[in-house]
Amino acid sequence: MAIDEVESYPMIAGDGPSSYAKNSSYQKALVEAARELINKNIANKLDLCSLKFDTDSCAFRIADLGCSVGPNTFIAVQTIIEAVELKYHAEHQNTSALEFQVLFNDHTDNDFNTLFRTLPPRKYFAAGVPGSFHGCLFPKSTLHVVHSSTALQWLSRVPKELINEKASESKRRNIQYTGSAKEVVEAKSAQFRNDMESFLNARAEELVSGGLMLISFPAMPDGTPVIDTIIGSILNFIGSCLIEMARMGMINEEKAYNFVVPMYTPTPKEMESIIQRNGYFTIETMCEMKNPMSHRTYSAEFNISHIRAAMEGLVLKHFGDDSVDKIFNYFTAKLADNPSVFDTKLKNMDLFICLRRISTD
Amino acid sequence: MAIDEVESYPMIAGDGPSSYAKNSSYQKALVEAARELINKNIANKLDLCSLKFDTDSCAFRIADLGCSVGPNTFIAVQTIIEAVELKYHAEHQNTSALEFQVLFNDHTDNDFNTLFRTLPPRKYFAAGVPGSFHGCLFPKSTLHVVHSSTALQWLSRVPKELINEKASESKRRNIQYTGSAKEVVEAKSAQFRNDMESFLNARAEELVSGGLMLISFPAMPDGTPVIDTIIGSILNFIGSCLIEMARMGMINEEKAYNFVVPMYTPTPKEMESIIQRNGYFTIETMCEMKNPMSHRTYSAEFNISHIRAAMEGLVLKHFGDDSVDKIFNYFTAKLADNPSVFDTKLKNMDLFICLRRISTD
Repeated sequence: MAIDEVESYPMIAGDGPSSYAKNSSYQKALVEAARELINKNIANKLDLCSLKFDTDSCAFRIADLGCSVGPNTFIAVQTIIEAVELKYHAEHQNTSALEFQVLFNDHTDNDFNTLFRTLPPRKYFAAGVPGSFHGCLFPKSTLHVVHSSTALQWLSRVPKELINEKASESKRRNIQYTGSAKEVVEAKSAQFRNDMESFLNARAEELVSGGLMLISFPAMPDGTPVIDTIIGSILNFIGSCLIEMARMGMINEEKAYNFVVPMYTPTPKEMESIIQRNGYFTIETMCEMKNPMSHRTYSAEFNISHIRAAMEGLVLKHFGDDSVDKIFNYFTAKLADNPSVFDTKLKNMDLFICLRRISTD
Repeated sequence: MAIDEVESYPMIAGDGPSSYAKNSSYQKALVEAARELINKNIANKLDLCSLKFDTDSCAFRIADLGCSVGPNTFIAVQTIIEAVELKYHAEHQNTSALEFQVLFNDHTDNDFNTLFRTLPPRKYFAAGVPGSFHGCLFPKSTLHVVHSSTALQWLSRVPKELINEKASESKRRNIQYTGSAKEVVEAKSAQFRNDMESFLNARAEELVSGGLMLISFPAMPDGTPVIDTIIGSILNFIGSCLIEMARMGMINEEKAYNFVVPMYTPTPKEMESIIQRNGYFTIETMCEMKNPMSHRTYSAEFNISHIRAAMEGLVLKHFGDDSVDKIFNYFTAKLADNPSVFDTKLKNMDLFICLRRISTD
């Protein structure tokens, strides 16, 4: 319970020039794109009158799962609080105000010191909760709104099939070279289903009846082959760079072939089927978000700095400290020559979902 | 609200050889000395049947205020949880179990990353709460037990009278030279009363009716002059070392005269009067704790490593990075020549108090 048993690769800590805090403007644009959807769903789908609170308390608890170090998490929770207050004040004139408690969650090796140090002036009580959101993190029926942005695409672990040492060399090469290979996609999809099932079961315990879950993450349009998506393109690019580097003796060959990014972007249909099979939540909203940044072209440096801020921990753990700069510098140089990796014609989809905990009365 | 406005000087971070985690065995002995008192007070003073819980939840919330980085905080909360479980199971056979949530609090610049990384295997949900315990840190009526060990003696700030730039040189010398000077003791005592009033008011909000507060900290026996206490002796020793160093040109003279340790050890009578005037709590227990370490003699290195783990942040902020090693090395050398600073005949008292939130029904 509440113990971090899964693999974890934190975003770059602190708030220096290469930190996640300074290299997450794409994620920030997503948070901003979600603002209107959050406002609308809280206004229309949150039934404050039927929500259960502590006996003598008006504590309204919001958890942000996979919060990293800010500032995006602060923007998101502020949006939620303002929407709840707006609704509350419209319905409850002359009553005492709600008190908000925000529980910022991420893996134990997330940089909570920076998160706490950079908390903005606020009208809520803040707490940090370390651990994997694939397990329970909070006592039963104590959360009113759960939020998670750009986090659910991370798998709890690299699927076992993909790290099977006994796989033949040729198969491994085939599997690892391309993120869009059938075996890779199937293994990741199965892992994602398991992870989401654990995630939904844990949240079903923690949310009060009628509590909302507001989640957004990168997805794949229904019926699009992975190879035609931007995430598939990036994963293939990373794979081919690593193989090239291995062939030139720049990094360990075995490690290059065994590198798997534990990330999966499901289709809306896949998500719908997982949620319905789980049975604890109704789907109140499921729609594509429009990220204003997704159809523009950016420099190789910008793109790689974003990838690095999110993936450095993973690369560090797999290849070791000596190789990290070498690998990301190679990515940047290669990307400058191959801008089509981020071709704006590639499919790109960010999914917003609002779930409501089914009443247990 | 929940914003850290007071001065803070964290214990040494991490778990390296000079860390607070590795140099707090005196504090640990206190936690262990408190074990029996905690068990007894929870068994006899906590009325589980009348305590209020969340509507659909059995969440029992424990806050440890001024927790630092462990391991002492983990030992203390484990003691509390075991005592509550023992009582609960004796009274509630065949009912669902309580779920414990432990809220670890300390200043925003406490090393929460180390705290989280070193959390032991546990049966509770853990959260970190950054901020000063002199203000509210949690929503109203949401805590069941508050614990604080060796933390309340730290003042929220150096009393203004003691940093008055206009004080005459001779007066300042007189004030700063000795921690036992009347002006120093009076100013600190007044600051302590204010701080405790804020502390008790905040806890009165946060605790449920009937909730318990279990606190322990260094105190002074009633009627003993500060000069005859171990804390007074240590503060005088620190003051005289700094003045010597300033006279030898080793550190800045102005800074040496202006250095004040924002720590105050009240007498039991003082505490009683503050709690009674506040009016939100009944005093269930107030007694001296027997610390098995308090009547032994230790090496100068051991004593200074303990002082350094707790006071390095304070010294660093006041004198700057360059002076820290110099100052603590000087302390160690001087202490080896003056073991009477820690004379076992000096008065030493650790106070344990159990308070109960008066019912508001």
